[in-house]
Amino acid sequence: MNISEYVDGILKNNTRAISRAISLIENEAEESVELLKALYPHTGNAKLIGITGPPGAGKSTLTDKLVKTIRKTGARVGVIAIDPTSPFTGGAILGDRIRMSELAVDPGVFIRSMGSRGQLGGLAKATQSAVKVLDASGCDYVFIETVGVGQSEVDIIKLADCVLLNMIPGMGDDIQAIKAGIMEIGDVFNINKCDREGADRLAIEIEMMLDLKGSFPIWRPPITRTQANAGIGVEDAWGQVVEFLKVAEESGLLNQRRVEHAQIEVQNILMDIFTKRIHNVAKDGVLEEFARQIVAHETDPYTVADELLQRM
Amino acid sequence: MNISEYVDGILKNNTRAISRAISLIENEAEESVELLKALYPHTGNAKLIGITGPPGAGKSTLTDKLVKTIRKTGARVGVIAIDPTSPFTGGAILGDRIRMSELAVDPGVFIRSMGSRGQLGGLAKATQSAVKVLDASGCDYVFIETVGVGQSEVDIIKLADCVLLNMIPGMGDDIQAIKAGIMEIGDVFNINKCDREGADRLAIEIEMMLDLKGSFPIWRPPITRTQANAGIGVEDAWGQVVEFLKVAEESGLLNQRRVEHAQIEVQNILMDIFTKRIHNVAKDGVLEEFARQIVAHETDPYTVADELLQRM
Repeated sequence: MNISEYVDGILKNNTRAISRAISLIENEAEESVELLKALYPHTGNAKLIGITGPPGAGKSTLTDKLVKTIRKTGARVGVIAIDPTSPFTGGAILGDRIRMSELAVDPGVFIRSMGSRGQLGGLAKATQSAVKVLDASGCDYVFIETVGVGQSEVDIIKLADCVLLNMIPGMGDDIQAIKAGIMEIGDVFNINKCDREGADRLAIEIEMMLDLKGSFPIWRPPITRTQANAGIGVEDAWGQVVEFLKVAEESGLLNQRRVEHAQIEVQNILMDIFTKRIHNVAKDGVLEEFARQIVAHETDPYTVADELLQRM
Repeated sequence: MNISEYVDGILKNNTRAISRAISLIENEAEESVELLKALYPHTGNAKLIGITGPPGAGKSTLTDKLVKTIRKTGARVGVIAIDPTSPFTGGAILGDRIRMSELAVDPGVFIRSMGSRGQLGGLAKATQSAVKVLDASGCDYVFIETVGVGQSEVDIIKLADCVLLNMIPGMGDDIQAIKAGIMEIGDVFNINKCDREGADRLAIEIEMMLDLKGSFPIWRPPITRTQANAGIGVEDAWGQVVEFLKVAEESGLLNQRRVEHAQIEVQNILMDIFTKRIHNVAKDGVLEEFARQIVAHETDPYTVADELLQRM
């Protein structure tokens, strides 16, 4: 396929063209830049929904049920699930993606798992690009789903138009810390497995945290409750997301966020260019030889970095 | 303090000098580079122990008890705890650091929490630099403790000489996926809260995974069991870490890892330089204006990135 065939296929929502385009992006193929430039004028219609939260809170199940709810309206949906990646094999852990197999046969839904192959922002850039492909293909909503722990994951979820933060009652101290780490990026707070003990307490904790955060001139994040595996509360949670998007659009908040996200996208592209330059100067054992000298205390990392900078 | 006063203080294990030096590094102060260059010849003695694992598995308690075990031998210990960071406030979540306050009064122990202020490898670089300070100050062991989820966290833990992977029995599907993501970086597998149901099954799962991974010419990761809060099994777990370090040193594996880590350190330094260049060209609203044009579909992120590259 050449670029214009890719573009044609994507605009016609051809699954094969979409899949292959995302693979090009993941593999950082040369032509992916040209493709993304060509797709860009056709983007901006899809709303990006970030779903995140601590591990074990049932994100995949919730996403599954949200997608089914949306599909009843006929809207088209894309899902990009960011999987924790094995640092050795480079392969994404498919894990509970299997649960969504029922959706996989629905032609109005496109599901893709992505793992972080590179490092240093590579995944955020690849995710943003994959979202562009799904946006251009005519998706009304694109979900980005990540485990809400870790800087990279937070960086990704911050690119969404609306962040639904999914939690469950009764998690330990460690979870508290993590929750605090992602709490401030939530537009809608959902308590899943809300039949468990501690749901009311969690709701109070969230409200207290929001009170501490101060005033909300445009939108105070509401708390919704679901039992996602039974489908309970899912429509209400989705209703709050839709309401947020409406308010954000009317108030200019959505546009403001998108301007911020575009800045991040440009920075990620630049960072990626520099990463490649570093790889180029480091290859053929050049950096390894310097590293041996560093370990032998013949030089230090800063002096080596200077030397490599000169060579670039 | 000027650089030589910092160096003097650090080499004499002066807590104030160490603390301030790490703050310089965290704040990316100009003089931190000069300081690190000056400290470099005095590093390389400390062994770096990475402690990681899923949230809620009792990492902090285990680290606490390991440090107490080591202190009985008179060895000096540094602990760098990487905290999940709030993306909005930039502040680290101290959380369960408080548990280690008993150690905080021991002059043979230095404890520091670090959060990721910047992005894109900034934390890995800051951690490596902080380790250098503690190494130069005469610590025999430096612990790096992270939640074992997320690319950034894995990137950090990969910098250790020995990785102790801490798990607990009976966590859900989501945890399984995360476990798989970090499993391959463990040199010692510890099952904490080993009195819980499922400890034997978890041990079997780990052994099976190791069998799948193939042969271990130098070291097959052993499985240890602890009830860290009661201090049970901690000495044995530490014994396995010490044994690994001995084998790694004799076999050349340790040197090989350090060469790899030095390469990463140089790359992180270069990446940091480029990050600053990007910030420089992006400031004073330049990037924001471009971003507005992107959102308005007057240009695209790749064209803007090209334009900014020209300006650098």
